Amino acid sequence: MEKFNFLDDYSEGCHPAILEALAKTNMSQQTAYGEDEYSSKARSLIRAHLGGATSDIFFVSGGTLANLTIIASLLRSHEAVISAETGHIVSRETGAIESVGHKILTVEKPSGKLDPEDIITVLAQNAQAPHMVKPRLVYISNATETGRIYTKAELTALSAVCRENDLLFMLDGARLGAALMSHDNDVTLADLAALTDVFWIGGTKAGALIGEAIVINRAALAIDFAFHIKQRGALLAKGRLLGLQFQTLFQTDLFFASGRYANDLANNLSKAIISAGHDLASETQTNQIFPILPNALVAKLKADFRFYVWGPHDKDHSVLRLVTSWATPEAQVDRFISTL
Amino acid sequence: MEKFNFLDDYSEGCHPAILEALAKTNMSQQTAYGEDEYSSKARSLIRAHLGGATSDIFFVSGGTLANLTIIASLLRSHEAVISAETGHIVSRETGAIESVGHKILTVEKPSGKLDPEDIITVLAQNAQAPHMVKPRLVYISNATETGRIYTKAELTALSAVCRENDLLFMLDGARLGAALMSHDNDVTLADLAALTDVFWIGGTKAGALIGEAIVINRAALAIDFAFHIKQRGALLAKGRLLGLQFQTLFQTDLFFASGRYANDLANNLSKAIISAGHDLASETQTNQIFPILPNALVAKLKADFRFYVWGPHDKDHSVLRLVTSWATPEAQVDRFISTL
Amino acid sequence: MEKFNFLDDYSEGCHPAILEALAKTNMSQQTAYGEDEYSSKARSLIRAHLGGATSDIFFVSGGTLANLTIIASLLRSHEAVISAETGHIVSRETGAIESVGHKILTVEKPSGKLDPEDIITVLAQNAQAPHMVKPRLVYISNATETGRIYTKAELTALSAVCRENDLLFMLDGARLGAALMSHDNDVTLADLAALTDVFWIGGTKAGALIGEAIVINRAALAIDFAFHIKQRGALLAKGRLLGLQFQTLFQTDLFFASGRYANDLANNLSKAIISAGHDLASETQTNQIFPILPNALVAKLKADFRFYVWGPHDKDHSVLRLVTSWATPEAQVDRFISTL
Amino acid sequence: MEKFNFLDDYSEGCHPAILEALAKTNMSQQTAYGEDEYSSKARSLIRAHLGGATSDIFFVSGGTLANLTIIASLLRSHEAVISAETGHIVSRETGAIESVGHKILTVEKPSGKLDPEDIITVLAQNAQAPHMVKPRLVYISNATETGRIYTKAELTALSAVCRENDLLFMLDGARLGAALMSHDNDVTLADLAALTDVFWIGGTKAGALIGEAIVINRAALAIDFAFHIKQRGALLAKGRLLGLQFQTLFQTDLFFASGRYANDLANNLSKAIISAGHDLASETQTNQIFPILPNALVAKLKADFRFYVWGPHDKDHSVLRLVTSWATPEAQVDRFISTL
Repeated sequence: MEKFNFLDDYSEGCHPAILEALAKTNMSQQTAYGEDEYSSKARSLIRAHLGGATSDIFFVSGGTLANLTIIASLLRSHEAVISAETGHIVSRETGAIESVGHKILTVEKPSGKLDPEDIITVLAQNAQAPHMVKPRLVYISNATETGRIYTKAELTALSAVCRENDLLFMLDGARLGAALMSHDNDVTLADLAALTDVFWIGGTKAGALIGEAIVINRAALAIDFAFHIKQRGALLAKGRLLGLQFQTLFQTDLFFASGRYANDLANNLSKAIISAGHDLASETQTNQIFPILPNALVAKLKADFRFYVWGPHDKDHSVLRLVTSWATPEAQVDRFISTL
Repeated sequence: MEKFNFLDDYSEGCHPAILEALAKTNMSQQTAYGEDEYSSKARSLIRAHLGGATSDIFFVSGGTLANLTIIASLLRSHEAVISAETGHIVSRETGAIESVGHKILTVEKPSGKLDPEDIITVLAQNAQAPHMVKPRLVYISNATETGRIYTKAELTALSAVCRENDLLFMLDGARLGAALMSHDNDVTLADLAALTDVFWIGGTKAGALIGEAIVINRAALAIDFAFHIKQRGALLAKGRLLGLQFQTLFQTDLFFASGRYANDLANNLSKAIISAGHDLASETQTNQIFPILPNALVAKLKADFRFYVWGPHDKDHSVLRLVTSWATPEAQVDRFISTL
Repeated sequence: MEKFNFLDDYSEGCHPAILEALAKTNMSQQTAYGEDEYSSKARSLIRAHLGGATSDIFFVSGGTLANLTIIASLLRSHEAVISAETGHIVSRETGAIESVGHKILTVEKPSGKLDPEDIITVLAQNAQAPHMVKPRLVYISNATETGRIYTKAELTALSAVCRENDLLFMLDGARLGAALMSHDNDVTLADLAALTDVFWIGGTKAGALIGEAIVINRAALAIDFAFHIKQRGALLAKGRLLGLQFQTLFQTDLFFASGRYANDLANNLSKAIISAGHDLASETQTNQIFPILPNALVAKLKADFRFYVWGPHDKDHSVLRLVTSWATPEAQVDRFISTL
Repeated sequence: MEKFNFLDDYSEGCHPAILEALAKTNMSQQTAYGEDEYSSKARSLIRAHLGGATSDIFFVSGGTLANLTIIASLLRSHEAVISAETGHIVSRETGAIESVGHKILTVEKPSGKLDPEDIITVLAQNAQAPHMVKPRLVYISNATETGRIYTKAELTALSAVCRENDLLFMLDGARLGAALMSHDNDVTLADLAALTDVFWIGGTKAGALIGEAIVINRAALAIDFAFHIKQRGALLAKGRLLGLQFQTLFQTDLFFASGRYANDLANNLSKAIISAGHDLASETQTNQIFPILPNALVAKLKADFRFYVWGPHDKDHSVLRLVTSWATPEAQVDRFISTL
C-alpha cells in the first residue's frame, strides 16, 4: 500500500465539484483574459460576502504572483514592507519581493503574528530619512505559517495602527479558508474588507487546481492594477479557469466547508496527539499540526506516512508538520492516530 | 443563436482528453512544485522529440511568464534583446521585459520574421560600449504574430549569426504547434533543440487549460533556472496540472493533431476568401487569417460572428483577424464561408 | 603642439570662478548630504529665476542619475516614457531607464524635437489596456542631441497636450544653458517652471566639475524624492560640492554667460563653414555644429584638431560634430576657420 | 565662535594637495568618461600596491553607487548577499541593494564583523532550493560601521569559507584608509587583492571631494563592468575629477597619511576619555570613538561641539559618536579633552 502523505494541502487535484464545473462549461466560448462570465459571477459571489464593500477583485494563478504583484503595484521603490520573520514572502518565495525592488523589515515572532507594538518599533527603528527605507505596508498571513489565526480584536488594532501611521495593511490568505473556519475564529470576509487595504483568498489550498482572489478594498489602490497583473505574467489567457473555480467555491458553501473539514480532521489529530502524551510546538487552530514526537515514533510513522520533519526539538525528539485538507480521508487520520 | 467567435485560440476550455486525464488522476497524491510523476513523464515524452538532445524542461503557467523568466534568468542588466517590432514581448506584454530591466532593440519587419542582416545591423548600431546596451539575445516567434513561419534554412542562418556573435537564440512558441504543422513547414522539435538555446512550446493555444513548456538546450543556461521560476511566481504548488496536460498532449499525437486541425480549417477559410475575390494582408501559413474585406461585408459578418478588426486597410476596406483552433467546429467555418 | 579638441563640452575642468570658490570655502565645516549652506543658497538663487514658482530643487552628480532617478521616482512600473528616438535616454545611457523598469516609446524625429501630434500618435498606438504599457511621461531634451532648441510656443503646445492627457512633462537640460542663450531662444527658466512638471539644469556642460540641478515644479511630485536620490546613489556625502558650484554659477550671470560664450563661438564657426561653401546636417542654434565636409578636408583638419566624425554623408563627405564651450579659446576657433 | 563638529569625516572640502592638483590641471583637455590620463595614472599607482595582482580598477562618485553597481553586476536575481546587520547596505542606503533586486541575509553582530561560522549558518538556513534565495556574496566593511577592523587571519578565514562555498567576497572600504592605518592592523592592499574578489577604496572619507576606487581582483568578474557603471549613472563625464584625486592620494603617502592622522587624533581622544573614567561602547581602533558619557557632561559638550548622540546607554548616560579626519585640527581635540 502506498504511504499516505500529510505533507501539505496541495497534493491532490481539485474538489470534485470543480472538476464537474470544468467538464460542464468546457466548450462554451468565453472572452479571454478574465473578461469571461464565470469570473464576473465569481466576483459578485465573493463581493456578496464583503458587507457592502465595493472592493475590486482580481484572480491570479498563485500566491507568490499575488504577493509580488500587489506589493509592486502599491509601493514606490523607497517604500518597504513590514512582516513577521516567518512570513511566506520573507523566506519561502526566493526573494520575489526584493526582486521587484522592496526591502522587507522583519520582526521575530514565534507565533508569526504581528501586533501594533511591533509596527511602532519598526517605524521608530527606520526613521532616519532619507537614509533608510520608508515602511509603508504591513504584511500578515492568516492563518500564519505556523497555523495560528488573528482575532477580530487583533486585526482591528493592527488596522488602526496602520491608518494612524499611513501604512497599507495587506493580508496573505493562502490559508484563509482554514483561518475563517477555525473554532477560535471571530473574523469574517466582511471584517477583512473593512479592516485591510488588500487581502487575498487562497483557492489552491481550498480545493482549486490553482488560483487566488485578490480583493482590493480601496478604489484608489486598484487603479491600473490590471496592468500589473498582465506585466507580471499573472493574467491567464483562459482566465475562465480561475473564474469558474471561484464561482464553484462561492456559489455554495464549498470554500468554507473545505476549511471546516480540514480543521476538524486536524483537531482530531491534534487531540489524539495530546491524549497520547505529546506536546505541540504550536497550538492547533487550523489545518496544520506541529507535534513534538520521540524520534523512535517518528521512524515508525514514516513506514506508513509521509510528512515534513520540521526540525529537531531536542536530541530525542523532532517537530513534525502534518497538514490536512478537503481531500484527506478520515480513515487515514484514524490510521495515523492508531499508529501513535 | 449565439455568435460564434473566431477571436482567438483560447476561447474554449481544454481538449476533452485533458479533461479526462484530470478526472482520472484527480485524487492521486503527488509531490508538489513540479516534482510529480506526470511532469516527469511529460519531460521524457517531450525529450523524446528532441533528437537526442538532453535539454532541461520546465513548465510555467503562461507565455508572459515564460518570456520574462527566461530573459531575466539569462541576461545581465546591461544586456538587451533583439526582436521584430511585431514581437509579442514588444507591445503585448505590458513592458514585462523592461520591468525586469532589459531594453528590447526592435527591427521593423511586416512579416514579423528576423533575418541575419537584421541582427548584424542592430549590432552595428549598438556598438558604442559602454554607453549603449549590449545586444545579447535574439527573440523570435514561430509562428509569428502575423501567422508566418520560419523555414529550417532561415532558422539555421539565424542560429549561425547568433553563434558567431555570441548571442543567445530564443524562440517563443506560443503557436509552435500550428507552426510545426504548417503545410510550408520543414522544421522539427529536434531542429529547434539543435538550433536554439531555448525555446518554449505553447500548451494554452494547443488545447491545454494553461501551460507552456520551456526547453533549455544548453546545460549551462539551465543552472539555477528553477530559482527564477519560483521567484517570478511561475512555480505552481500543483505543478501536476501542467505536467499532466503536457503528458496528455505528447503521449499521443494530440499536440500535433491540434495544430494540424486548426491549420486545415484556416486553410479552408483562407482559400474560400481568396476564391471570393478578396486579398490577404498576410499569407496564411498557420491558424491565423488576415483577410482584407469590404466594410459592408464586415458589417454583415458581424451579425453572425465575432472577430477582431485588426485595422483599416483603406477607406472602404478593413483587415480582419480570424483564428481557428482544435475547438473550432467545421460547421462554423462552413457557415462563415457561405456568409462570404 | 597638442591637437586642440572640439570633441565635447566636458574636456576641461571647471570655470575658474568655481575653482576659486572651492579654495575659499574648503575648510569650512558644512552639514553633509546636501544640507549645507551653499546648497541652500544655490536653491534660492535658482528659485529666483522661476517667476515665483516654489519648485523643489535637488542636486545630483550627473545626467544619467538625474534621468533615472526622476523617472523611477515618478512612474509606476506599468507606465512608460515617450521620447524622440534621438533622446539621450534612448541610446546613450546603457538602458538606464529600462534597468529601473520602464519602457521608452520612441518617435523618429531627425530634429530630435517632439510635437503634440507625436504624443497623440503614441497614445493612440498604445491604447490596448492592460496589454500595453501606459504612456505617462513625455521626455524632451533642450537643447536636443543635435543642437536644436524648442520655442516657447512649442513648449506651450507640448505642455498643453500633456496636461490634457494626464502625462507628466520632463525636460532634460544637460545643455540648457546653451539652449537658453541661443539667438533663436525665447524661453526662460520661469517658462520651464510653468510649463514642465520637472526639468533639470546641466551644470557639467556649463562650467561645473560635476552636477545637475533637478527642479520639480509640482509639490506632489517632490514627495519623498530625497529617498530616491539616496537609493540610486545620487546623494553625495559632500553635497557642498554640488551646492557651491551652482551657487557660483547663479550668484552672478556665470551660468548664462557660459552658454552665451559657447554659442557665439559656435555661431562664428558655423558661419565660416557655410561661407566656405559647406552645408550643415543640422542647423546651428547652440554650441554643437554638424558640418558636412569633404573627406580630404576632414583628413587635413584631423592633423590639428580632434572631433567626432558623426558618420558618413555620402561617399566623399562626412558629417562632423564640433562642440564649443566656456573653455574654448577664440584663437582655436580662428585657427580651425583658417584651416578650412 | 562656531561650534566645532565631530559629526563625521566628510564635513570639510578636500585635502589642500587635491585642491592644488585641480587648479594645476584645470585647463588641460582630457578624454571624457574615465579615459583621461589622470585616471590611468591613478590606476597604475593603486595597482602598484596590490602585490602583483592585475586587478581592474574603476572610479565612481560615491559609496552607495559602488555597492549597488558591484552587487547588481555580479549577482543573478535569485542570488543574495550575506552581511552583518550593521552593514551600511542594510540600513543606511535606503534599500539600494533591494532596489536592484537582491535580498540581504543579515547576521546580528555587535562588532559588525562576520566570521566563518556566520557564513556557514546562513548557508544552512537558506538551503531549501528553489524556495529560498541562494546566498552568493559575502559583504563586509573594513573598518566596520562601529570603527572595528579585521585582522589578516580573520580575512583569510572568511576568504577560505567563501571559496569553499562558491561565494563571492566583497569588502566595502569607505573607511579603508583608517582601517589600514589602525595600530591593530596587519592587512595590506595586496592582502585584499589576494583575499577578496572585489573591494573598494574610499576616497571621500580620506580627503577627496568625492570618489571611490573599485578594485576587481578576478578578471572574469570585471567583464562588462563598465556598462554597469554607465547604466547606474556612476560614470562621470569629467572622470578626470575622480582620477586626479586618486592620483594625488596615491602618488605620495597622502591616502595613508590621512588615515594615520585621523586615527592618531581618535586615539588621543579615546585615551583621554578612558583616563577621565568613562567607558566606550566599542573599542577604538580607527577614527570613530563611541564614548559612554553622563548626560550632564553631554549637555556641556554640546555647548562647544557638534556630534551624534548615537543612542541612550542607560537613564543617565548616552553613547556618542565622535569622528576625526585628515581635517580635524589637533587644537579642537585638545579643547574637547579639556572640556571633558
